[in-house]
Amino acid sequence: MATSSSAHPSPALPTSRTYAVLGTGALGGFYGARLQQAGCDVHFLLRSDYEQVRQHGLVVESIDGDFRLPQVKAYRSVAEMPACDVVIVALKTTQNNFLPDLLPPLVKPGGVVLVLQNGLGIETDVAEIVGADRVMGGLCFLCSNKIAPGWIRHIDYKQITLGDYAAGYQPCGITKRMQQIAQDFKQAGIPSEFSPDLFLARWKKLMWNIPFNGLSVVLNATTDQMMADDHTRLLAMLLMQEVRAGALACTQAASDSEVSADRTIPADFIQTMLDYTLQMKPYRTSMKLDYDEHRPLEVEAIFGNPLRLAQQAGAELPRIQMLYQQLKFLDAQNQQKK
Amino acid sequence: MATSSSAHPSPALPTSRTYAVLGTGALGGFYGARLQQAGCDVHFLLRSDYEQVRQHGLVVESIDGDFRLPQVKAYRSVAEMPACDVVIVALKTTQNNFLPDLLPPLVKPGGVVLVLQNGLGIETDVAEIVGADRVMGGLCFLCSNKIAPGWIRHIDYKQITLGDYAAGYQPCGITKRMQQIAQDFKQAGIPSEFSPDLFLARWKKLMWNIPFNGLSVVLNATTDQMMADDHTRLLAMLLMQEVRAGALACTQAASDSEVSADRTIPADFIQTMLDYTLQMKPYRTSMKLDYDEHRPLEVEAIFGNPLRLAQQAGAELPRIQMLYQQLKFLDAQNQQKK
Repeated sequence: MATSSSAHPSPALPTSRTYAVLGTGALGGFYGARLQQAGCDVHFLLRSDYEQVRQHGLVVESIDGDFRLPQVKAYRSVAEMPACDVVIVALKTTQNNFLPDLLPPLVKPGGVVLVLQNGLGIETDVAEIVGADRVMGGLCFLCSNKIAPGWIRHIDYKQITLGDYAAGYQPCGITKRMQQIAQDFKQAGIPSEFSPDLFLARWKKLMWNIPFNGLSVVLNATTDQMMADDHTRLLAMLLMQEVRAGALACTQAASDSEVSADRTIPADFIQTMLDYTLQMKPYRTSMKLDYDEHRPLEVEAIFGNPLRLAQQAGAELPRIQMLYQQLKFLDAQNQQKK
Repeated sequence: MATSSSAHPSPALPTSRTYAVLGTGALGGFYGARLQQAGCDVHFLLRSDYEQVRQHGLVVESIDGDFRLPQVKAYRSVAEMPACDVVIVALKTTQNNFLPDLLPPLVKPGGVVLVLQNGLGIETDVAEIVGADRVMGGLCFLCSNKIAPGWIRHIDYKQITLGDYAAGYQPCGITKRMQQIAQDFKQAGIPSEFSPDLFLARWKKLMWNIPFNGLSVVLNATTDQMMADDHTRLLAMLLMQEVRAGALACTQAASDSEVSADRTIPADFIQTMLDYTLQMKPYRTSMKLDYDEHRPLEVEAIFGNPLRLAQQAGAELPRIQMLYQQLKFLDAQNQQKK
């Protein structure tokens, strides 16, 4: 059992930790602002919003109470930033092609890159850049929007599930640095949970993201519309079954026998996700928002990577593959129309 | 081998044949007008266009030459129509719920119902209404539109593949009445081919209709866009493989061993269809036209029936099922917006 303690010796972080935020948008801006508000030393990388944020700081409208940070450490380039203990990656995965340039100068030798992105396999890519012992992942349950440059509206939820990374997504248990980062987030009012198995946690999140993000774009539909229709509700369930089968194939291929029992998504998790979706307020998914705004879709992180990993492990996932192919087509058409 | 002569003794039709056309639209109006022009006695059932056609007849603009029939035998109800030797069903399949009322009074005891609709399984439904010995099918390769009441524009192609029907879609070979009807169509300038196995012919047509009609609606795309994109071209091929697998499962389940070799769609038919699609002019499919005009989609005839038949024969067709589910959702949403 790898659930209660660290199975891999990840180096601990220093007692006081500095943070860098790559991607100061709805997610990175929110968490970064809360960390700074709680007293952390946070350094923000910005592109288009740089001038606004350098001059006026960040504004957070939040269900927890609005606040303003008149001054933040804003940067236009990593070359100007100090190396930090924790580098939060909060870009869209469609911009991850910049990571080989951004990360190496930014993460301290004993530091860590915390990937707060959707999908699967990003930690593996980051490990190739900074080394497998300097990567962690986090799954964010957050509803927020950037409504103007440097202006974030936090609507609902905020918790993070943290998981440590080791080569090949081996389960890491609960590491010291997970606890250290959770401590900082706790001070910032962000509750976090620990996942001893980041790979499994990412697959579990895909159980929702694959059917609902994907179908919302292809069918131009909100979650309540998809749940109200017998055909799409059944389709969502069949897609979840494929996600579960993919996770099972991958974890069986990767696990040592000792931990394999822990790496199965319970069958009733599908019904849990359906019930949860039924109870949600009518919701336009994040991928649908991206699509409607003509932003590139995170198809590879959320669909392509899991699909390829499952195929390598011998699992055919025909419906997920079809959804992937449909999204690739729609994304390409949508970018042309921009 | 059942390819060269009649395997089932279908009754022959009389020497001179009367025709009824149910659904005087782009297809029924075109073929009916050509038959009348060639000297056949044709009776047209109309709904919304009745007044116009009764007073002014039919106009056909055609690549073969325009013509006008100032007077046609137009009816608003089958109760006013004489029983005919050949009853052409040219309604949309979404209106087939009316057939139990329309057909019995209209088809002569020795006559036949000729189903010129898309999809699979309609002949079986019609057989339940008029008897299995009074049903035939035809596959139309026709590009035409109804551009105004009683006004048809014939754009391209026109040929029909005729196939006779026997209970359970047993192969019928080339029957006498197929040849008789082909003779009338030939006089009307419509070339026809004979299919000794209507079931197989319908499955072969589904090889194109399932991927391209379906995806054109789901992806809001023309044939050339789908063929130009690597992902959708591959998806179309995978859908065709599933159609072929469905046909194989059904014909193996239904065939006596003697004819089973004839009932397999050759594997290279997939490439033939892809090449054919690549060479087509950019094309908005008929299902996409229906969708854009907020007309009900023929989802059950083209997707639902083949899917259920294949499932009964033990074949899982996950991609076709997914396309079916997506179309059912989109069709329902589209009808709400009407």
